[in-house]
Amino acid sequence: MSKKQQPLTLEEANLQKIVSHAKEYGFVFPSSEIYDGLQAVYDYGPNGVELKNNLKLLWWKAMTQLHENVVGLDAAIFMHPTTWKASGHVDSFNDPLIDNKDSKKRYRVDHLIEAKAEEYRQAGDDARAQALLDKMNELLNREDFEGLRQLIIDENIVCPVSGTANWTEVRQFNLMFSTKAGAVADDSMTIYLRPETAQGIFVNFLNVQKTGRGTSMKIPFGIAQIGKAFRNEIVARQFIFRMREFEQMEMQFFVRPGEEMQWYEYWKQKRYDFLRAVGLPENKLRFHEHEKLAHYANAALDIEYEFPFGFKELEGIHSRTDFDLRNHEQYSKKKLRYFDDEIKESYIPYVIETSIGADRFFLAVLCNAYTEDVGIDAKGNEKKRVYLKFHPAIAPIKAAVFPLVRKDGLPEKAREVFNLLRYDFNTIYEERGAIGKNYTRQDMIGTPFCITIDYQTMEDNTVTLRHRDTTEQERVPIAELPRIIGEAVSLRSILSKL
Amino acid sequence: MSKKQQPLTLEEANLQKIVSHAKEYGFVFPSSEIYDGLQAVYDYGPNGVELKNNLKLLWWKAMTQLHENVVGLDAAIFMHPTTWKASGHVDSFNDPLIDNKDSKKRYRVDHLIEAKAEEYRQAGDDARAQALLDKMNELLNREDFEGLRQLIIDENIVCPVSGTANWTEVRQFNLMFSTKAGAVADDSMTIYLRPETAQGIFVNFLNVQKTGRGTSMKIPFGIAQIGKAFRNEIVARQFIFRMREFEQMEMQFFVRPGEEMQWYEYWKQKRYDFLRAVGLPENKLRFHEHEKLAHYANAALDIEYEFPFGFKELEGIHSRTDFDLRNHEQYSKKKLRYFDDEIKESYIPYVIETSIGADRFFLAVLCNAYTEDVGIDAKGNEKKRVYLKFHPAIAPIKAAVFPLVRKDGLPEKAREVFNLLRYDFNTIYEERGAIGKNYTRQDMIGTPFCITIDYQTMEDNTVTLRHRDTTEQERVPIAELPRIIGEAVSLRSILSKL
Repeated sequence: MSKKQQPLTLEEANLQKIVSHAKEYGFVFPSSEIYDGLQAVYDYGPNGVELKNNLKLLWWKAMTQLHENVVGLDAAIFMHPTTWKASGHVDSFNDPLIDNKDSKKRYRVDHLIEAKAEEYRQAGDDARAQALLDKMNELLNREDFEGLRQLIIDENIVCPVSGTANWTEVRQFNLMFSTKAGAVADDSMTIYLRPETAQGIFVNFLNVQKTGRGTSMKIPFGIAQIGKAFRNEIVARQFIFRMREFEQMEMQFFVRPGEEMQWYEYWKQKRYDFLRAVGLPENKLRFHEHEKLAHYANAALDIEYEFPFGFKELEGIHSRTDFDLRNHEQYSKKKLRYFDDEIKESYIPYVIETSIGADRFFLAVLCNAYTEDVGIDAKGNEKKRVYLKFHPAIAPIKAAVFPLVRKDGLPEKAREVFNLLRYDFNTIYEERGAIGKNYTRQDMIGTPFCITIDYQTMEDNTVTLRHRDTTEQERVPIAELPRIIGEAVSLRSILSKL
Repeated sequence: MSKKQQPLTLEEANLQKIVSHAKEYGFVFPSSEIYDGLQAVYDYGPNGVELKNNLKLLWWKAMTQLHENVVGLDAAIFMHPTTWKASGHVDSFNDPLIDNKDSKKRYRVDHLIEAKAEEYRQAGDDARAQALLDKMNELLNREDFEGLRQLIIDENIVCPVSGTANWTEVRQFNLMFSTKAGAVADDSMTIYLRPETAQGIFVNFLNVQKTGRGTSMKIPFGIAQIGKAFRNEIVARQFIFRMREFEQMEMQFFVRPGEEMQWYEYWKQKRYDFLRAVGLPENKLRFHEHEKLAHYANAALDIEYEFPFGFKELEGIHSRTDFDLRNHEQYSKKKLRYFDDEIKESYIPYVIETSIGADRFFLAVLCNAYTEDVGIDAKGNEKKRVYLKFHPAIAPIKAAVFPLVRKDGLPEKAREVFNLLRYDFNTIYEERGAIGKNYTRQDMIGTPFCITIDYQTMEDNTVTLRHRDTTEQERVPIAELPRIIGEAVSLRSILSKL
């Protein structure tokens, strides 16, 4: 019984709307679509890449430019394989899987059990659902695979394809992608595509601390990085929320041991303020403190956003102790210590991490921007207007310039206006099509300003400036446009609030 | 006889100087250095990542913002594997290798033969060297592997380790990295890390053409992309010039068949102008037209830059015909045609490609910026000053603010100046160390402006503005700083020349 054959839930319908809009208006395409796609991989189209670049630049500036003590880094995806021994990923970055012997299909154990719990919940037995999930989590934490298999059998969980409970043992499956580097026999080695960007920061800790921005960095200081990471997710779901190839924006903040909790609180607030400043509303954001902590953490929380499919993790703030640096010391046999000349002591710093997925951030911003206004048209009929109400500073295109007609010198005048703006703002010029239709198209991609050159422009050098969110039009002098647009679309308008 | 034991050549010494400077001043670190590095992979440090981001942003704006008919794209690294059948990479992206049976060492056939030719050249026999290289190229083009092996034997080429000519057959080695996606047996597939970014543009050709910036794109139009690519190079050399993981900045320009040569000339000139505008000098750039063309090309040239190790390819301009789109049509069984309503005809467009490695561009800009000025100090001794004379618009840090002393309110005043600048420019504040030493450090990372707050500042709100290239200092009002710096560091100052 495939979910696809049932009517869409409201959540699915809302997500589907976003997915369709994203494709139709050049934000996100399925990867390799002409080859029928590659599961859990997506490409960013012309408007998507502009939006994503703006979000990345904003994060980057908020981190490195607004914080004197945070510098950037861009470590390679390929790292020495011992890195992943030290970090624990070779041994522990696993999902438990089980195969059905009749259908030969393979499943994630937790997904099978969660589906059963959902059945209980749908049947109104919330208590039983919760008890089942608690039991599962307990077994997962203990890595009791025999117990997990028994739970599946006790709960009469059957394969959705074969309908039987003829299950294999539970096996661990490592989520890292691996490849071979080097063709020369004694030089070839198995390397991994990094499953997280953080380790590139840890192995470079001393190199960065010593060089900084021309002078050495003093604790507390942070290292920020944006880059791709890869996880061989068994079941990737929910559009660009969980992909096999994704982009992380992470910052590791190195502090004196014992002072980590004050910085944990500091970054929790800073990151929340950032998300609010970009336009995500208070009622769609919430904190979720972790009750169960990863083995390396002494405090952790998620900032969750309410996606169309519910509140889900958008960003994580983790107090990672000295776990990573200590392990890299052990595996590399090199000292990763900091000499603190205020207290005349050498130590392995503690680390506060902030980690947000660039793709999830993109999805949150896109969902939040998607707006349907229902109004009444001149004939009294209901009329829906769709637009993307991005903060102007992150909108893919800042301004669109149109001549009212393609004659009488209006296109030439419009090009003058276009040339006035194009070097400073991502601006487009369009002379095809009716003005109303051009407004609608720019609404669909979230362009905050449309500028129309008409006959009056030829007389007094004023234009019609149309505002996306209100559709209000005002008459402004051409010479005023750079200032009006500049103030609205400047990243400074967001950064100065932080 | 290892090259390392001989004295460095001038070229090697010059490159070594750049490599050392890059590491010491936070531009480029060897990857995973605490684990003794990963061959042919590098990480960008705090100043390197800022420089690289500036270069990428400049290219991006020059392509997409200055060309109305060029839009961006960000396709994933992972693509459907059939992509690489269609592009020819699965079958033809190979290097011929040979093993020595005694030493068990493996070599690239062309490298062994090139080394022999170099021996002839060193001995003064240029004609024999050239004849050998011509013979090799002829055999390589015919994929005559038995002939290549025979040539190695005829030339008495021996293994540098074992000293014997006990060679295996020549074998082809594919340069693509491969990995497995998916754990579920019937869903798992071999996928490749893309060896070039261009194919992500081709498979998305119609999606982009239809969506554009809210309206469809009309031919001629281009798609620009920046992204990582991966090649399992057998012998990676020359610092970040040839890496296993690298970043490309590519643009594919789709034109009407028959009009490709005019656009080839157009982009050849545009790209040369771009490189000149960033500051690469005329005498270090040259065109190299390809005599032998790849099977997909009907014209091709390199723009070469004179690196410390000689003139080498920096950027390629290729007329790729309809090779790629035609093959993707064939393999995907989907039409990749454009209906040209001016001539009422549907066709597969021809393609002009511009392709520059972001890492090579970075290396060219870094080498070009590295400057040693030798002068005479007060005592009559020779004194060397090193600085990086980046165009201010691409410098990692735009301005550094220092109080002359750490008392009498100077630090507070300096912070006021810092706060005036920091939201708009990547600015640092430093109160440790002597002013002279701080100037030197900022020279080393190429910061164009240093600002010193002294006692006079407290009286008349003027500061000392020190210029990197001339070391000249001038007295300017604080209120003038945003304008002076803003004009110098704006990307517009480069873009408006293009």
